[in-house]
Amino acid sequence: MQYPLEYSAKIRVNYYDTDQMGVVWHGNYLKYFEDAREEMLRSLGCPYQELERDGVIMPVVDVALRYLHPARYGDVLTVKVIVKEPPRARMSLSYEVTDGEGRLCTTGSTTLTFVSAKTMTPCRPPAVLRAN
Amino acid sequence: MQYPLEYSAKIRVNYYDTDQMGVVWHGNYLKYFEDAREEMLRSLGCPYQELERDGVIMPVVDVALRYLHPARYGDVLTVKVIVKEPPRARMSLSYEVTDGEGRLCTTGSTTLTFVSAKTMTPCRPPAVLRAN
Amino acid sequence: MQYPLEYSAKIRVNYYDTDQMGVVWHGNYLKYFEDAREEMLRSLGCPYQELERDGVIMPVVDVALRYLHPARYGDVLTVKVIVKEPPRARMSLSYEVTDGEGRLCTTGSTTLTFVSAKTMTPCRPPAVLRAN
Amino acid sequence: MQYPLEYSAKIRVNYYDTDQMGVVWHGNYLKYFEDAREEMLRSLGCPYQELERDGVIMPVVDVALRYLHPARYGDVLTVKVIVKEPPRARMSLSYEVTDGEGRLCTTGSTTLTFVSAKTMTPCRPPAVLRAN
Repeated sequence: MQYPLEYSAKIRVNYYDTDQMGVVWHGNYLKYFEDAREEMLRSLGCPYQELERDGVIMPVVDVALRYLHPARYGDVLTVKVIVKEPPRARMSLSYEVTDGEGRLCTTGSTTLTFVSAKTMTPCRPPAVLRAN
Repeated sequence: MQYPLEYSAKIRVNYYDTDQMGVVWHGNYLKYFEDAREEMLRSLGCPYQELERDGVIMPVVDVALRYLHPARYGDVLTVKVIVKEPPRARMSLSYEVTDGEGRLCTTGSTTLTFVSAKTMTPCRPPAVLRAN
Repeated sequence: MQYPLEYSAKIRVNYYDTDQMGVVWHGNYLKYFEDAREEMLRSLGCPYQELERDGVIMPVVDVALRYLHPARYGDVLTVKVIVKEPPRARMSLSYEVTDGEGRLCTTGSTTLTFVSAKTMTPCRPPAVLRAN
Repeated sequence: MQYPLEYSAKIRVNYYDTDQMGVVWHGNYLKYFEDAREEMLRSLGCPYQELERDGVIMPVVDVALRYLHPARYGDVLTVKVIVKEPPRARMSLSYEVTDGEGRLCTTGSTTLTFVSAKTMTPCRPPAVLRAN
């Protein structure tokens, strides 16, 4: 794998993602981050369900988000995922969410680890994610 | 256990339960039903996590809901659960959701089965739920 | 519009849609129904956000679901929406959810009404949804 | 109001909060934070729905979370909310989530602003939240 990685996913805001403020409820961006991250893994030939089948789970160890502009129902968001460096014990991803008019709505980051589902202890990243 | 069973739970509507219509998103009543059902099981000395620990899971096989009056953020709802008959292969529950002013907001029903988590085949209801 | 209407949407099961039973939490199918229904409305040139902009909201008045086979993380579901008759005061939709191997996972129905957002009283369906 | 403020809420982990990893899905802690924050506001005589009725909304501008130990279905969590200083343009809250055995599961923070719902421009915090 060549780093840095960049991937952009298109995500449509659902009605049930909004709250009575008329905008996306702030916690739902973590769903969009997860959707985009998994779409990226699939595009790399490394879908998360195959990792799990191989006995590796990837718990999230921290997240951070900044809300700059509210996204609304019907918006088709672009969620750009950036992975600057090959993962070692941890994989750090950052995110930029823009709406259809190019406004930056939300930025954020998540850190994930690699854990053996059998022993629940840390393990190495899968080969496909290592640097060339 | 004596049938019919009746149990009433108080459930507060959260902000994240609303949508941009300004009322509770219709799918969230299934969360309230589940909350009330599990609170009833705890009150009967039969918390669902103990059933799972004993190897029994209770998948939902059907649900139905009617929406009569919208519940709103900040409402403290009363969710009444009624179990008319002791469960056999299936357990049938009905629900009535009223708001703080006594208006009937939603009615519904759910049917659950008893399944052995090990064999994934139907099993008997736990002893505590059988009729006296 | 010609009736009956039929529309099929592809919906991917997200990780956050599952619960610790290892399958999709039963309430989440109402999200899939909503996703498919709105995709159908868009395909008919009648996106729901335009209805709302025109002052019409469509509250759900009842739903029913039967769970036949569990859907799992990573499944790409086909959600078929069927509208047998042109809506009058109400619009009745039925749904069939199948997984990638053609197994019927869930069936269901929802009824929606047409309400003026200004007066909160029933109104006529939008012209585009009326029968030719 | 006397600062620092501290408030502890008890929050039960629901079945639908878990994912197929068998633990609480990481995004759901933002629900627990919101629940605890609103319970604190109610305890201070300043329920959020009254703020909204008075025309003030409190959008979230940033969040951060660290996941230390997974919470599980059936856990009754203690969510401690700490507000070190009286809010000015922004209100900063931090959170500590511990499970029934006293293990620290999650820590985090959220920053909220005060916005006039009418003009959508920043406004002063409500009187009840200002320092004595």
